[in-house]
Amino acid sequence: MDVRESIRALAARVKSVARQLAVASSAIKDRALRAMADGLAAKAAWLKAENAKDLAAGEAAGLSAALLDRLKLSDKRIAAMAEGLRQVAALPDPVGAIIGGSVRPNGLRITKVRVPLGVIAIIYESRPNVTADAAGLCLKAGNGVVLRGGKEALASNVAIWRVLQEGLGAAGLPAEAAALIETTDRTAVDALITADGLVDVVIPRGGEGLIRRVVQGATIPVIKHYKGVCHVYVDASADLAMAEEICLNAKCQRPATCNAMETLLVHGAIAQRFLPQMGKRFAEAKVELRGCERTRQLLPDAKAATEDDWFAEYLDLILAVRVVDSTEEAMEHIARYGSAHSDAIVTTDVREADKFVQGVDSAAVYVNASTRFTDGYEFGMGAEIGISTDKLHARGPMGLEELTSYKFVVYGNGQLRQ
Amino acid sequence: MDVRESIRALAARVKSVARQLAVASSAIKDRALRAMADGLAAKAAWLKAENAKDLAAGEAAGLSAALLDRLKLSDKRIAAMAEGLRQVAALPDPVGAIIGGSVRPNGLRITKVRVPLGVIAIIYESRPNVTADAAGLCLKAGNGVVLRGGKEALASNVAIWRVLQEGLGAAGLPAEAAALIETTDRTAVDALITADGLVDVVIPRGGEGLIRRVVQGATIPVIKHYKGVCHVYVDASADLAMAEEICLNAKCQRPATCNAMETLLVHGAIAQRFLPQMGKRFAEAKVELRGCERTRQLLPDAKAATEDDWFAEYLDLILAVRVVDSTEEAMEHIARYGSAHSDAIVTTDVREADKFVQGVDSAAVYVNASTRFTDGYEFGMGAEIGISTDKLHARGPMGLEELTSYKFVVYGNGQLRQ
Repeated sequence: MDVRESIRALAARVKSVARQLAVASSAIKDRALRAMADGLAAKAAWLKAENAKDLAAGEAAGLSAALLDRLKLSDKRIAAMAEGLRQVAALPDPVGAIIGGSVRPNGLRITKVRVPLGVIAIIYESRPNVTADAAGLCLKAGNGVVLRGGKEALASNVAIWRVLQEGLGAAGLPAEAAALIETTDRTAVDALITADGLVDVVIPRGGEGLIRRVVQGATIPVIKHYKGVCHVYVDASADLAMAEEICLNAKCQRPATCNAMETLLVHGAIAQRFLPQMGKRFAEAKVELRGCERTRQLLPDAKAATEDDWFAEYLDLILAVRVVDSTEEAMEHIARYGSAHSDAIVTTDVREADKFVQGVDSAAVYVNASTRFTDGYEFGMGAEIGISTDKLHARGPMGLEELTSYKFVVYGNGQLRQ
Repeated sequence: MDVRESIRALAARVKSVARQLAVASSAIKDRALRAMADGLAAKAAWLKAENAKDLAAGEAAGLSAALLDRLKLSDKRIAAMAEGLRQVAALPDPVGAIIGGSVRPNGLRITKVRVPLGVIAIIYESRPNVTADAAGLCLKAGNGVVLRGGKEALASNVAIWRVLQEGLGAAGLPAEAAALIETTDRTAVDALITADGLVDVVIPRGGEGLIRRVVQGATIPVIKHYKGVCHVYVDASADLAMAEEICLNAKCQRPATCNAMETLLVHGAIAQRFLPQMGKRFAEAKVELRGCERTRQLLPDAKAATEDDWFAEYLDLILAVRVVDSTEEAMEHIARYGSAHSDAIVTTDVREADKFVQGVDSAAVYVNASTRFTDGYEFGMGAEIGISTDKLHARGPMGLEELTSYKFVVYGNGQLRQ
């Protein structure tokens, strides 16, 4: 059997047992999640031993210190995975919720009921914790899951996956509902993302390169997150002390995240009062600035921004800065260069706030708050599988509900179509 | 400029004006739709003259009588297009609805607001009325639209599209929000379905071949409907008189539709009482039967069904018939051969009904009613752009709400992420 066939066979097995998960009660699914958490805690030593194999191979292969750090399973990280699974167990089950309904003039009673998506494929890179985090969410929402992690984390991923399977079994659920692809052959990914009829959706988690490859090759639907080029616009009427704190937080609190600010837009009328002081704060925080012409007149230490800087997702302590003359000009900049992820206005003028909220077409639009809040936990979803920059199905942070579909259940007493 | 570049330029123009439509009031959008309806009525003679060109070319090219009939714009069909647009104008506007929200512990006020998808591409085949029907729905939901119809209907489609553009203009909306691809070059479709960042979703409407080509080639999300292999299962406890009427309606009322029954499943315990009488009714209705072994013992005139028959979407007066021994066996058949579109059980036993409703994973699951009701109008959506057999974004009939996305609007007073 070649790789393509074996992947299809694997997906078919997941699909064949996914129906059992789809109709499992919340109590049983939660029992499985807690058994997984217990298993991770009980087997921490073994997980670290398996992880050590990946670390040794990674070191031998010359992986960077940063990559090796992402790969590492410490006691703290294992505990965090277990705690994550317990939190997911404690969340309300989205499956079975009635999300609409009506009685039609002919007496048909229609209800729209939330059901699992079916089988979800997760393709991810080096962090092994994704194995537990992503699978836990998919399973809680009643879905079968096919996991494909990075090859440098294979031993760690397999170990975690085995614990997840034991948890399913302990709750009387089919262990095959969670599958992991053990071959590192690239063909496996191609087979997985073209498994129409077996896999219902693929969620790639990783860098833009990975995601574009999946989108190019997939014939099954993809939920994706390309990048976050987030803006804060400081309006002429802004409370400048508030603006300073919001900008500092949006840029520096965790610069490597997709909801961090990458470009600051400042209204010309307050640029002279705002930018020199803001520049001082950024200098203290070691943020490198790349400014437009007008910015550089006020902040002579800033480098000159190029066209590429306006498109850039630095994920680092670097910030592009531009002076604009209106909310409209800020909105045009955001529409042209942004990624429709998270954008904020700082203003005291309700008219400018309204304009911005209406006119900026991003997953999250903020008035007087940091863009850093775009996150499933912060939005009250309890957990997130990721953030979608698509507009189809799910936009912004995706929690358990976003891992479901719905069906129409129709009760009649002999109705016929005329 | 080659075809690919010119299609990208066209999509970029639609995107650039789509924001105006996205923030247009319901009153203005409805004015545009009514102006379009008036325009179609006023220009019926011209529309028929343009349509005559397509008909003459089609006849010369040897199109079948059935295809020529689908192509034809009669006064009645033009009036129906106009009436369709008026009905869409009368529907509630989905845009701006608040579909969720909360105040977070830190005081952030989050609302989830319905917004247009952006730019929708519609790829369709020979019926020119789709030009008005699909565009009307997309525009009402605040979206820009790029239309690509069949080459045999080009003159008709262009004429209808011109009237739509005049309607937009009459209401003060940008005519460029509705674009039509006038080249018949196949490259145009490839360019359209890979226009990431310009087009947000593509909806192919037509035969399975067209849809598979779009899915294979697309890098933008696709909402699709492959086929409808719908089942009616007559349980042992069924009211047989009701079952007879439901089966006749599901098969014969309009056999060429995707929600018509293609396979009848009958419980063995009542097959002897039910099938001979049902067979008589089908014979009167000129339905050709293809049965399993047990069916043919009761209906000797039925042909022998092959494995292909269980997968078949006949769209015609042909029906596959199988005798099964339980609801479970019926559900297994549906899971294996069905298309997860619409499936019904006829039963008086609430336990069998529950089993079927829980266990059948189809867009619409019926108890004691005809599968023919799976339709946007019948479900109370007012209109439909199509029926989705996907699980992502939209499932089953798609109305105006399914042509929207959402965004999170977040108001704060200086909140920072800790």
